[in-house]
Amino acid sequence: MRAMRKGEATRQAILEHAVGLARQVGLQGLTIGRLADDLSLSKSGLFAHFRSKESLQLQVLEAAAERFIDVVVRPALKIGRGEPRLRALFDGWLAWKDPQHSPRGCVFVQTAAELDDQEGVVRDRLVQMQRDWLDVIATSARGAVREGQFRSDVDVDQFAHDFQSVLLGYHHATQLLRDPRAEHRARAALDALISAARRH
Amino acid sequence: MRAMRKGEATRQAILEHAVGLARQVGLQGLTIGRLADDLSLSKSGLFAHFRSKESLQLQVLEAAAERFIDVVVRPALKIGRGEPRLRALFDGWLAWKDPQHSPRGCVFVQTAAELDDQEGVVRDRLVQMQRDWLDVIATSARGAVREGQFRSDVDVDQFAHDFQSVLLGYHHATQLLRDPRAEHRARAALDALISAARRH
Repeated sequence: MRAMRKGEATRQAILEHAVGLARQVGLQGLTIGRLADDLSLSKSGLFAHFRSKESLQLQVLEAAAERFIDVVVRPALKIGRGEPRLRALFDGWLAWKDPQHSPRGCVFVQTAAELDDQEGVVRDRLVQMQRDWLDVIATSARGAVREGQFRSDVDVDQFAHDFQSVLLGYHHATQLLRDPRAEHRARAALDALISAARRH
Repeated sequence: MRAMRKGEATRQAILEHAVGLARQVGLQGLTIGRLADDLSLSKSGLFAHFRSKESLQLQVLEAAAERFIDVVVRPALKIGRGEPRLRALFDGWLAWKDPQHSPRGCVFVQTAAELDDQEGVVRDRLVQMQRDWLDVIATSARGAVREGQFRSDVDVDQFAHDFQSVLLGYHHATQLLRDPRAEHRARAALDALISAARRH
């Protein structure tokens, strides 16, 4: 039992390092060999923990998703339904994009660009995670309709798509263009989106 | 004179191949050695054409930008000012994103994700290209204000930022999520953006 716990703690520590390495070399550059070199561990020892490159990549994605849920989703679920929750999700995403959590940009945006023209279980898992995220937004928008904050004919899936576009525009404006007005622009875009959903 | 022309034709043919290779391996994976292997040419011959990895990458970006101008910008400039031109730019970008021009997704979106955490002249050139593109949109929006199609207090730089966010959202929805409603969503987002700029 204690050995299992120690094994699990080791796996977690290695995984944390792997997430950092994936940010540098991309998810596809993350191999068991590369990780072994980086940690001065034996390849065979790492194989015992992760079994295959694919399984390592999947576990890195899962670890990032858990952190995303902690930073973005969970705090927002404690906030009142509808519009306040949507704004909390937005603020959470901006905090997630902050260098503290995402020193080289959002790992999901990065990985999307890397894997979007690939096939396989890693891509499929990333797509599922993105759909889950869009569902969180659409469900919160549906909450805003139920609370009477948004019009009853608002297309909540379109709202989720547009919300995500605002986030991608923010990522592009900060990460590539280093536009000092990026946050101001993104907040103005969110306000316009919410105001259009409210209008009677 | 004829020798110069032949040299230039060879350089163009190699560059075309290099653009295709960059789509596969990323701009950073594109080295003179890799390109030489791929074309079964000598490295020293390629060095004579491109001089350095950096210069090769810059020339690949310029070649892609020229094609982008041909497919997206030039046709739109023939269209009436303001809103019709903005819609033509949007249609042009959707055509650009089509597999015919962008078999693996838009090379600028891809390269942005790749270079956004780097430093150097290649990144700087990409940023300048993106700013030029935002300027084309802002200038067209300013045209819409002058033509009386948009309100006079529309912030044309915010409009350009939002327009670009819609394109990034479309790219994400088609390229990663393979959402069959992606184009419908993007067109609805553009209509909402234009309608908000018109409203008195």
